[in-house]
Amino acid sequence: MQALVKRREGVGLTLEEVPIPACGPNDALIRVRHAGVCGTDLHIWEWDSWARGRLRPPVVIGHEFAGEIAELGAEAAAGGLLAVGDLVTAEGHIVCGHCLQCRTGNAHLCQRTQIIGVDRDGAFAEYIAMPASNVMRLDGIPTDVGAIMDPLGNAFHTVLEAPVSGATVLVVGCGPIGCFAAGVARAAGAALVVATDLNPRRLELARCMGAHVVMNPSEDDVVARVRELTQGDGVDLVCEMSGHPAGHAQAFAAARLGGRVHLLGTPSRPTEVDIARDVIFKGLTLYGVTGRKMYGTWQQMGRFLRADGFDPRPVITHRYPLARIDDAIRVIRDGQAGKVILEIGT
Amino acid sequence: MQALVKRREGVGLTLEEVPIPACGPNDALIRVRHAGVCGTDLHIWEWDSWARGRLRPPVVIGHEFAGEIAELGAEAAAGGLLAVGDLVTAEGHIVCGHCLQCRTGNAHLCQRTQIIGVDRDGAFAEYIAMPASNVMRLDGIPTDVGAIMDPLGNAFHTVLEAPVSGATVLVVGCGPIGCFAAGVARAAGAALVVATDLNPRRLELARCMGAHVVMNPSEDDVVARVRELTQGDGVDLVCEMSGHPAGHAQAFAAARLGGRVHLLGTPSRPTEVDIARDVIFKGLTLYGVTGRKMYGTWQQMGRFLRADGFDPRPVITHRYPLARIDDAIRVIRDGQAGKVILEIGT
Amino acid sequence: MQALVKRREGVGLTLEEVPIPACGPNDALIRVRHAGVCGTDLHIWEWDSWARGRLRPPVVIGHEFAGEIAELGAEAAAGGLLAVGDLVTAEGHIVCGHCLQCRTGNAHLCQRTQIIGVDRDGAFAEYIAMPASNVMRLDGIPTDVGAIMDPLGNAFHTVLEAPVSGATVLVVGCGPIGCFAAGVARAAGAALVVATDLNPRRLELARCMGAHVVMNPSEDDVVARVRELTQGDGVDLVCEMSGHPAGHAQAFAAARLGGRVHLLGTPSRPTEVDIARDVIFKGLTLYGVTGRKMYGTWQQMGRFLRADGFDPRPVITHRYPLARIDDAIRVIRDGQAGKVILEIGT
Amino acid sequence: MQALVKRREGVGLTLEEVPIPACGPNDALIRVRHAGVCGTDLHIWEWDSWARGRLRPPVVIGHEFAGEIAELGAEAAAGGLLAVGDLVTAEGHIVCGHCLQCRTGNAHLCQRTQIIGVDRDGAFAEYIAMPASNVMRLDGIPTDVGAIMDPLGNAFHTVLEAPVSGATVLVVGCGPIGCFAAGVARAAGAALVVATDLNPRRLELARCMGAHVVMNPSEDDVVARVRELTQGDGVDLVCEMSGHPAGHAQAFAAARLGGRVHLLGTPSRPTEVDIARDVIFKGLTLYGVTGRKMYGTWQQMGRFLRADGFDPRPVITHRYPLARIDDAIRVIRDGQAGKVILEIGT
Repeated sequence: MQALVKRREGVGLTLEEVPIPACGPNDALIRVRHAGVCGTDLHIWEWDSWARGRLRPPVVIGHEFAGEIAELGAEAAAGGLLAVGDLVTAEGHIVCGHCLQCRTGNAHLCQRTQIIGVDRDGAFAEYIAMPASNVMRLDGIPTDVGAIMDPLGNAFHTVLEAPVSGATVLVVGCGPIGCFAAGVARAAGAALVVATDLNPRRLELARCMGAHVVMNPSEDDVVARVRELTQGDGVDLVCEMSGHPAGHAQAFAAARLGGRVHLLGTPSRPTEVDIARDVIFKGLTLYGVTGRKMYGTWQQMGRFLRADGFDPRPVITHRYPLARIDDAIRVIRDGQAGKVILEIGT
Repeated sequence: MQALVKRREGVGLTLEEVPIPACGPNDALIRVRHAGVCGTDLHIWEWDSWARGRLRPPVVIGHEFAGEIAELGAEAAAGGLLAVGDLVTAEGHIVCGHCLQCRTGNAHLCQRTQIIGVDRDGAFAEYIAMPASNVMRLDGIPTDVGAIMDPLGNAFHTVLEAPVSGATVLVVGCGPIGCFAAGVARAAGAALVVATDLNPRRLELARCMGAHVVMNPSEDDVVARVRELTQGDGVDLVCEMSGHPAGHAQAFAAARLGGRVHLLGTPSRPTEVDIARDVIFKGLTLYGVTGRKMYGTWQQMGRFLRADGFDPRPVITHRYPLARIDDAIRVIRDGQAGKVILEIGT
Repeated sequence: MQALVKRREGVGLTLEEVPIPACGPNDALIRVRHAGVCGTDLHIWEWDSWARGRLRPPVVIGHEFAGEIAELGAEAAAGGLLAVGDLVTAEGHIVCGHCLQCRTGNAHLCQRTQIIGVDRDGAFAEYIAMPASNVMRLDGIPTDVGAIMDPLGNAFHTVLEAPVSGATVLVVGCGPIGCFAAGVARAAGAALVVATDLNPRRLELARCMGAHVVMNPSEDDVVARVRELTQGDGVDLVCEMSGHPAGHAQAFAAARLGGRVHLLGTPSRPTEVDIARDVIFKGLTLYGVTGRKMYGTWQQMGRFLRADGFDPRPVITHRYPLARIDDAIRVIRDGQAGKVILEIGT
Repeated sequence: MQALVKRREGVGLTLEEVPIPACGPNDALIRVRHAGVCGTDLHIWEWDSWARGRLRPPVVIGHEFAGEIAELGAEAAAGGLLAVGDLVTAEGHIVCGHCLQCRTGNAHLCQRTQIIGVDRDGAFAEYIAMPASNVMRLDGIPTDVGAIMDPLGNAFHTVLEAPVSGATVLVVGCGPIGCFAAGVARAAGAALVVATDLNPRRLELARCMGAHVVMNPSEDDVVARVRELTQGDGVDLVCEMSGHPAGHAQAFAAARLGGRVHLLGTPSRPTEVDIARDVIFKGLTLYGVTGRKMYGTWQQMGRFLRADGFDPRPVITHRYPLARIDDAIRVIRDGQAGKVILEIGT
């Protein structure tokens, strides 16, 4: 089959012919239709320090996808809950099932997580084998949406970890997950959704997803305007999606007394935090967001996607075939893209 | 009446004869029996930069106390729920009752809080007038314990904000509130309570309050030993009571994936936090602790104090009359004291 | 002033001239503009067994209202948070502030609650005096909506006590509060809202408020259709607003394993519950809804009413002057009304 | 191997020689050391209407056990998390992993649960094969305690679903799970634990496990005394373990306004509930307890059992070999036993 492979250390990816993966007794072999390209894939393409420390080439890249079940292992087929031909997506974190986190509803923080496309072969390929327990039927959700349920799930996890109905929400940073978060907050009944980014194109996407107000910190005093919009209180929830020190400062200043700051954007270096002023005296709750709750987040997301009124597709700005991965990487790097997906099979 | 007054800017306090405060229609006038001396009082005595920025002398100092109701205003008496002669303590944060925080169960974060002994006259005096809504009957709790329910309440708030039954807990910093926290965690059914401090005398108090294990970071590799004691997982809950950067580092490193860090010790300067490594990838929840929940914390605390099996008095190491405030301040400053209380009336 | 008074035992109410109530030091005297007529007022008009057991005539009736502050007591004015001329509504439960429930965020369950229009003079009058702590500024919400925030708050309390974003919800019984509940669930992001009633006019109002699907148990097999609409699972949340045994049976059968049933409709007699089959083996959570959380529910409700997208006014079907109370009572009794309000002042 | 088998319809069980079960790729084959005898086994022995409706003989009985891993399937061994020779216990509910409940942290309510010893072969045998995901290492807990972690887990689930630290708790019915619940509540920091039963011997066990006060409804006015002990408030939490209408009445009357009633005792017929008086006006929360949370309950329970201070063994009153199952059933039926266990291997 065709697959995008990190063949060796260094920049770039290669499109290669590799064997179709074996389908173990607990596995589903999935014929991939669509796959999402993530910032993580950019790091791997660029072979930055994180990638050098984590990957052991050769490895097939890609962890966001949807497709059709082509084969089921004996154990996986036994329950009758999945069938060949089902359209599905899958959680890309493969977990141990036995550690404290797995045993207490926090498998997204498993001590032995393996991520597809990073720690083992991934989804930028015609086929991928996945443990059946990671696989979920789309039941009507189209496969291009199914292919982005991983990052969309990050947004659902970030927003729905707070009681967001009737709440005021600030989304700091409008990359694809930030735009999704604005949409999720709106769909979940937030009374006010404000989104900030330096990039006007991204602000446009955030508005399109449902932000009531968008602001550009290069032009607006974000904290002052947020206070104005909230009768001086500040917001109930900040979703920090930028990972920048300026974003953190905005987040802590804009959150109300007793508010919440959910942190998803991963900074590349430590941040100075005035814990007394910004956390203790404000009585804030901070929450670090990793992945998607397994599988509460997926269930909630499925509900929203199958109901009317929530469509993440405006954020998908570019679609490429596997062979044009370099173009996909380029538009992400240029900061002009929303979500970029690969069209692999049909 | 006799009272300890911050008469003017500068170091020290003076014992003076001042008028007994007036008892407004909604007030209880309380004859003080015991009062606790807090780090805040030390700041005021020393007239440090915080005190200079906040206090407007003259003001009677002191915010932790218990005593006997001497008089009730007409409105305060109306319900028949408080009576002259009742032994009582009181929450020292006087709140507005109308802001978002007051209206949503977070009055401890009121936007217009006034603290007795800081923003208005306090409790190091023979009498204090308090809004009746801040006053709670002791119902069998002795007044020397009643006088420390403010800092003890900080410990209850810190510990019981997490599901602590069966949990593993690390208390970083064994000042009086840290020692109380060790005791609260134990009484609330924690499976493991570890406490750390550089001061062996404080570690002794923590052990006496119920810590299973105490460690001195000058001798022990705290994080390594905590991991050992928790089968490599790290602890469910860290109570950060030190306010020191070293304490923060310990806290983030010792918390388990998906754990909680509750921050009460107020640092004097910003801390570098590796948000990616220590918050996001660990899926941590951080919570800033201000005061006591009004009045959930007080109710829980009353339950523990009236049941058998929880006694905070080992932490009270020194008792002085009002006139010896300088001695009280000195033993606190020397770091040799647990909790210091003033004996005012009987 | 003019007021509707229950002058003596027996059927009916009388419109009388009575003195304007005195405004105590902690009170706001409010000039009433609009008031809502409730089932409770019907019971009082009819002088049924509940009314006979509870009321001590003479009493001015009515507990749902909004109006303008005409006078403030000295203590009430002190904080500067309310001002003469403010448009306001008020919580009609006057609570003690000292019992366990008041002290732990459950003042709506105060052991010494007094309800206006029942236990003391109420709002079907030109003026009413209320403790300032019960009064909330409308800040842009019109007074006809302000006048129904009491029953609307029942609906918010019922719905938002569950995590309703993305949830499937069944509302059993479409009186005014049921219709509101359908609207609240929709505005809070429920993925599916089903409403049932025997009365087609009420089903129309529920649909108008946002129910995706309405059903009439006289024509539809509600439980079977709910299962169909939820892939066989049943719903996450049932809001039981009917108080009828048939409603309870529907509620328990339609809730999913691990779901929630929130009970607001008050039955007139005990119900047979198959606790083993319907509660234990289903792992259900049942929650009894009394009043509105003080004041979390009011804050959430205010947020929804001030944001776009939630308007309860379609449920208001009739408006009368004070003098036509008998007409108001009649349309409620006939079951043809949604919400009925009185227009008192301007 | 030797096993207790329900060979055919009708009363009794037979001790037979049957084949050792096969160990599938995902399974652990466990050599049983101890097994607990449950009320369910009594129903099966007696072949009552529940048993007739549910079981399809022949089936090996028994669902509570602990033992030693004798063999591991290839997939089960892969992770290296379980090893031959490990002492283990197991959750006896085998779940589908794919339904809404399994996917959202409520696997104990799986729509396709199979229970060992009921729906498939069980643990009253020398060996049992279990899916490795159901198996947990004892890590120092003795196997006689491991064998009762199923019913003990029911008690942990019942008690710890409420915030029990500092709470007042009433346990209605002191069968083994009620006695365990009294002990769990005490160990988790409850301020007051009251237990009731008609059987003085069971009350003695409850007191021995930690109940502060025990009452016999045949001699005591339980509700009146509970109110006395709680300053008139009633208790925060009732654990209803009796399943009797009298127990339900006690539970609803003794719970405080805003309290919780957790229902585990399964009644044999519907109960009349005054939903208005007892649920709605009291603002109660009811929770139906099924099984153990998978696997949060097991983790919490393990923590308590490995810490000092919680020992369930006083409740184990009888121990028999497999061959004496009729004696075991008899002592349970006589109501004189606490927990009865079978000693099978070593």
